[in-house]
Amino acid sequence: MKRIALGLQYDGSHWQGWQTQRHGQTVQDTLETALAKFCQAPVATTCAGRTDSGVHALEQVVHFDTTVERETGSWRRGVNAFLPPSIALRWAAEPMVPMVPIQPDDAFHARFRAISRTYHYLIYNHPTRSPLWVGRAGWVFRPLDAERMQEAAQNLVGTHDFSAFRAAECQAKSPVRTMHSIDIKRHRELIVVTLRANAFLHHMVRNLVGSLVLVGVGKQSPSWVAEVLASRQRKHAAPTFSPDGLYLAKIDYDARWGLPQTDAVPTFWTVCS
Amino acid sequence: MKRIALGLQYDGSHWQGWQTQRHGQTVQDTLETALAKFCQAPVATTCAGRTDSGVHALEQVVHFDTTVERETGSWRRGVNAFLPPSIALRWAAEPMVPMVPIQPDDAFHARFRAISRTYHYLIYNHPTRSPLWVGRAGWVFRPLDAERMQEAAQNLVGTHDFSAFRAAECQAKSPVRTMHSIDIKRHRELIVVTLRANAFLHHMVRNLVGSLVLVGVGKQSPSWVAEVLASRQRKHAAPTFSPDGLYLAKIDYDARWGLPQTDAVPTFWTVCS
Repeated sequence: MKRIALGLQYDGSHWQGWQTQRHGQTVQDTLETALAKFCQAPVATTCAGRTDSGVHALEQVVHFDTTVERETGSWRRGVNAFLPPSIALRWAAEPMVPMVPIQPDDAFHARFRAISRTYHYLIYNHPTRSPLWVGRAGWVFRPLDAERMQEAAQNLVGTHDFSAFRAAECQAKSPVRTMHSIDIKRHRELIVVTLRANAFLHHMVRNLVGSLVLVGVGKQSPSWVAEVLASRQRKHAAPTFSPDGLYLAKIDYDARWGLPQTDAVPTFWTVCS
Repeated sequence: MKRIALGLQYDGSHWQGWQTQRHGQTVQDTLETALAKFCQAPVATTCAGRTDSGVHALEQVVHFDTTVERETGSWRRGVNAFLPPSIALRWAAEPMVPMVPIQPDDAFHARFRAISRTYHYLIYNHPTRSPLWVGRAGWVFRPLDAERMQEAAQNLVGTHDFSAFRAAECQAKSPVRTMHSIDIKRHRELIVVTLRANAFLHHMVRNLVGSLVLVGVGKQSPSWVAEVLASRQRKHAAPTFSPDGLYLAKIDYDARWGLPQTDAVPTFWTVCS
């Protein structure tokens, strides 16, 4: 039995989120079906970050255990042949084994060995909706002040009780998370919010973005975000923002695992002038 | 009766091209239905460049005649309410009337008054397919040499008989077109081909891109493109490339019409590796 790690990209607009559902169209079910066809045996997967319905992944990390022996390139080509166009296996690798004797807890684990997670949220900021950003970005038609949003967001960096930005259904034991950084930049009509934290609560990014948008359009001051955070009351924050613009971008692991992760930093390209 | 011009954006992956079809899902039929609802009268439209099935438009230009009197902002908001998410009216305007007495031929006409057309073709150049570029870019898994493609493309600039890159079904009277410029640039794993010409033949961009890709992967030399052009034989060029990466980007008109055309349209983004 060996443990295999996978880098997975998907367009979440086609899927009801990551997690397996009895009657749902989910990424996990689709991936496990493809892996089972390739392995000719059932496969159970674990991911680093369970994405909601409509949320995309640039590089989700997944692991599973198997007795099948294949070259890593063969996993990629073989499994992709069984996956639909909206999901692709970008790489497969056998995480390196630690030099010291292995305790059960020492094995690679997509979720428990993750050091931090990076998400991007894209906002299309234009008076008219764009067909080319449907399902790919949230849309705000009022002008957003990205610098004001950036100022507000700095109130969220650090270790805090994020109860004010947590979904009622969130199953995490603690509402405390460490936000390493939030960067908000405008690229013409696109606002890109990049958040890195040790982990995120359920709906945390979408709830934060909703509140930052209220600051960006001038309805709230940057310091209001600090007040909402301190209140620890979900009712004080903005409604949950659309899943369309949310991308799970990168999972950080210790380099000792030797995973062939791509640095999933988005690059921007503008069509005309 | 007055003539109205529209700027239209669409995600072509949902549509069987621009032109009306008896049993087809086309952009023209959908737009005319929306305009008829808004005007409460039938509307017949003419576009600047008829796009094929799967081809996108960042800013298609369309005109029609109507007796309905509305503010231009009202056209935009009103008609968009009747359009699906994959099509949006970006602006509406009444083209300015020439100062000199008007002959029938002097009126604005989306197609006949167009001075030049700009298309972009996007190629996702990566060993593994990307779910986030499905329907939005052509995919080439072999490494492409963009500089070599750029060198080859310069053989196509100028006024030429483009019969070698023309679809058999092309209805144009002459195969001669003037290519003003072709620019090919790499933005990480995205290759962007930008072509500006007075007009294009049927499948001309996709046939040119197919041939330039053969040069980019090293199967043909840059000068081979000049030989294919000179042969005027369709059989010597590469097969028609996928419609996925093709975007009608900009139609140039004389400034005297006063159209509120946008010069920069969407920002695309990609994941770096």
